[in-house]
Amino acid sequence: MTDQSKSRTIVEIYGKTYTIIGQESPEHIKEVADYVDQIMREFSSRNPSLDSTNLAVLAAINAASEYLKLKKKLEQ
Amino acid sequence: MTDQSKSRTIVEIYGKTYTIIGQESPEHIKEVADYVDQIMREFSSRNPSLDSTNLAVLAAINAASEYLKLKKKLEQ
Repeated sequence: MTDQSKSRTIVEIYGKTYTIIGQESPEHIKEVADYVDQIMREFSSRNPSLDSTNLAVLAAINAASEYLKLKKKLEQ
Repeated sequence: MTDQSKSRTIVEIYGKTYTIIGQESPEHIKEVADYVDQIMREFSSRNPSLDSTNLAVLAAINAASEYLKLKKKLEQ
């Protein structure tokens, strides 16, 4: 894969800026970033004592759980 | 929902212990935790300078991206 096929998208998640480089479209990356940002804010409002790392790990667990459930459903 | 229908699963992700409380089975939670742990370790080996928060956010982006792509595929 050449660098030309990669997109470079700047997104903001939980107040921090990330540059995401990859094959996905900027529209997809922005949608994904909004999704992660929203989960982190939801967990934060429910547990204000959680720090950014814990919030991000919980967001990752949440998204991975949805993904693996849907994947299994499809495989069945 | 009563508390009885919730499971309490202790997992380790990137060297830290998390207690996950939810409706999912402990088997599912452990599978999810392994998945997240693996993504964080992969990103860490590729970018050793990234801290835990960045690694967790990237893992969340990765998992959310897979989930949203699969969801769209199913909806089509």
